Amino acid sequence: MRYSNLFGKTNKNAPHDADSANAKYLVQAGFVNQLAAGIYTYLPLGYRVLTKIQQIVREEMNAIGGQEVYMPALHPREPWEATGRWDEIDVMFHLKGHSDKDYALGSTHEEIITPIVKQFAHSYKDFPIFVYQIQDKFRNEARAKSGLLRGREFSMKDLYSFHLSEENRAEFYEKVADAYRKVFKRCGIKAIYTEASGGTFGDASHEFQTPTESGEDIIFYCESCDYAWNKEVSQVKDGDLCPKCEGIVKEMKAIEVGNIFPLGTKFSEAVGFTMQDENGTEQAVIMGSYGIGPSRVMGAIVEVSHDERGMIWPKTVAPYHVHLVTVNTKDETRQQRIVDEAESLHDDLTQAGVEVLWDDRGNKSPGEKFADADLIGIPLRIVISEKTLAEDSIEWKERYEKDAKLVKLIDAKEEIQSYVNEPYETTSH
Amino acid sequence: MRYSNLFGKTNKNAPHDADSANAKYLVQAGFVNQLAAGIYTYLPLGYRVLTKIQQIVREEMNAIGGQEVYMPALHPREPWEATGRWDEIDVMFHLKGHSDKDYALGSTHEEIITPIVKQFAHSYKDFPIFVYQIQDKFRNEARAKSGLLRGREFSMKDLYSFHLSEENRAEFYEKVADAYRKVFKRCGIKAIYTEASGGTFGDASHEFQTPTESGEDIIFYCESCDYAWNKEVSQVKDGDLCPKCEGIVKEMKAIEVGNIFPLGTKFSEAVGFTMQDENGTEQAVIMGSYGIGPSRVMGAIVEVSHDERGMIWPKTVAPYHVHLVTVNTKDETRQQRIVDEAESLHDDLTQAGVEVLWDDRGNKSPGEKFADADLIGIPLRIVISEKTLAEDSIEWKERYEKDAKLVKLIDAKEEIQSYVNEPYETTSH
Repeated sequence: MRYSNLFGKTNKNAPHDADSANAKYLVQAGFVNQLAAGIYTYLPLGYRVLTKIQQIVREEMNAIGGQEVYMPALHPREPWEATGRWDEIDVMFHLKGHSDKDYALGSTHEEIITPIVKQFAHSYKDFPIFVYQIQDKFRNEARAKSGLLRGREFSMKDLYSFHLSEENRAEFYEKVADAYRKVFKRCGIKAIYTEASGGTFGDASHEFQTPTESGEDIIFYCESCDYAWNKEVSQVKDGDLCPKCEGIVKEMKAIEVGNIFPLGTKFSEAVGFTMQDENGTEQAVIMGSYGIGPSRVMGAIVEVSHDERGMIWPKTVAPYHVHLVTVNTKDETRQQRIVDEAESLHDDLTQAGVEVLWDDRGNKSPGEKFADADLIGIPLRIVISEKTLAEDSIEWKERYEKDAKLVKLIDAKEEIQSYVNEPYETTSH
Repeated sequence: MRYSNLFGKTNKNAPHDADSANAKYLVQAGFVNQLAAGIYTYLPLGYRVLTKIQQIVREEMNAIGGQEVYMPALHPREPWEATGRWDEIDVMFHLKGHSDKDYALGSTHEEIITPIVKQFAHSYKDFPIFVYQIQDKFRNEARAKSGLLRGREFSMKDLYSFHLSEENRAEFYEKVADAYRKVFKRCGIKAIYTEASGGTFGDASHEFQTPTESGEDIIFYCESCDYAWNKEVSQVKDGDLCPKCEGIVKEMKAIEVGNIFPLGTKFSEAVGFTMQDENGTEQAVIMGSYGIGPSRVMGAIVEVSHDERGMIWPKTVAPYHVHLVTVNTKDETRQQRIVDEAESLHDDLTQAGVEVLWDDRGNKSPGEKFADADLIGIPLRIVISEKTLAEDSIEWKERYEKDAKLVKLIDAKEEIQSYVNEPYETTSH
């Protein structure tokens, strides 16, 4: 993709009202555009990142046998009345349709999925049943803030599971927790498994918390056993001994990037969803729910992975793999060679499945182009200039490294390809 | 995928309130589930079809240089006030947020995209500009009906284009029309280019209309020159001579599956979006908009491609390429061989990228399985039974053909693969 053709370019100035790194950089770099508080349009660069995160989540959900469905956002009142949550969820948008019919905009989907699963579950042999969706949620937040971290409309992956025994529910819970660990690792963020409130019948729920100063949550974390407690439920405080392993507990701020809830039988009982188990005993179906917000993960990545010049994307979710910069010269012959070499590298790499963003602009100085490359944060920057071509080379610089190196033109394609294809390690930056 | 594991199976009975073939078969076959009038959940089979249609649309939009964005569904009042459409669009849902803030749910996005494009367009060299999204729209329909054809929440691909001359706009219009022809061809439906109302300044808009008795629109179609007029604007009637080619005009019912609109300068003027052209003349930007509803296309495919036993999917959008049926027998050794051969074919094909739905159920008769296969409508049915294995064969039957044939087991994988990979022809069924 030629940057000159890309819709949604960088701005010289950061937005004046940005309250967080992700709000600042994502807007300034042309990834998103704010329509209203907590409501964003994803421009092409931003939408590429969002869909890559969604795809990682999808792959890990499919890997544990998840089947993808897609539920509506517009909900009639009745299923929400059945569980008593129509008036209980204070962030739910309510609206009216024709004939004064009441609707809500989905902020979660327990009330929608449970009757569907009830309809398709015929025997204990069908269990466990679990389905997920990647879909947009709506929350009437009093105060939307921090860019993609707390929005009024946002992307959510929600999975719902249905079981005939508490053991089976608990076993599945661990399976999802493992899948979540893989998701966050592939997205390049640390996510600490954290005990939290919210479960029914005294069971804890769990959150995945990404430590960062810009987080809204406070957690107490034991590095020795890698476990944490949300402040809401914590019996320990900063400096205490960890009750699990006697390590030292540290207080930190964090962003909740995922959560998993044991739901008990609250939602199944509301719609009379019972099933005979293999012994013929009729029982209410036990449920769990499991959320990851891909748009919030996108914001969290920026919070933990940026410097004063801009964003630093893990290559797994970067909008492009390679940011190719051509440095213009006034000498026509040499300029032609720069453009020819760049075009050929761009085309060869694209052909090979490497995603290249080529800053081909003729009216920008090298300084402006490098500043834009740093702001956009694609992990590998390749420069072709008079100077590099004098050495029959390209310049290779990784976003999170200080120094550049020269790579021979003849090796460039192959080295870039193997950089792009080598397994991604969270710890590499 | 083993059918025994699939979430969302067929029902014995068709829904009692279905008013159309798509509402009947999609629900009965477990593709969708109705939450409320005009509001559907896509179950795994249905979501596979929907996303395949969306992907075809995406590929054809990208092929003409379209860049994908993603706009929100929740809109503040202000941009709609600016164009006077806040109160004008009668199907727009309105709702209130905190502090009595007014929102609408997007039924279209001209008001949202135009200010964004204005912000990123700096010079005539940036034009034409066009971006698209695939996103869910909301319409407060007085009467939702006909399954996926007229819903209150539905999938839409909307593209918006921005030009500095009417010629450039008209040229781009033809380019999109050609891309639309490719989309409908790949989706296996006839779509007639039809003159319609709705353009500004006296320009016609155009619709793509799929002829079927269940259509809501009436068009007058000349088969000789393949052009048509929507009844709303038609100067001709059934039996008249075509004013273009003197063929005979025929009246028919049809479903509008796509539309393209010249928008003039209405939306750009509302936000003061002007630009100097290459001669330095300041002018209002000229716009076009272009829609295809993937969910409506899904419904339309069923309307035109079904029989009394169920749906008949084109292989390009079928939920799976192959419906593998094993016929059970009581002889344990022979049953084991049936299962082993099926499993090996299923695994080999899946490995090779062929999508196989295997009806592995042990408690269903061949008749029930065949009826389900016909209802679900996957284009190729493969049967493995005692009888076929006695001939070292599988049975091969295409959904739209009457007769089956035997194919040697040893050739099965290769023949199925080449069937799946051979180019899809709309006319093949």
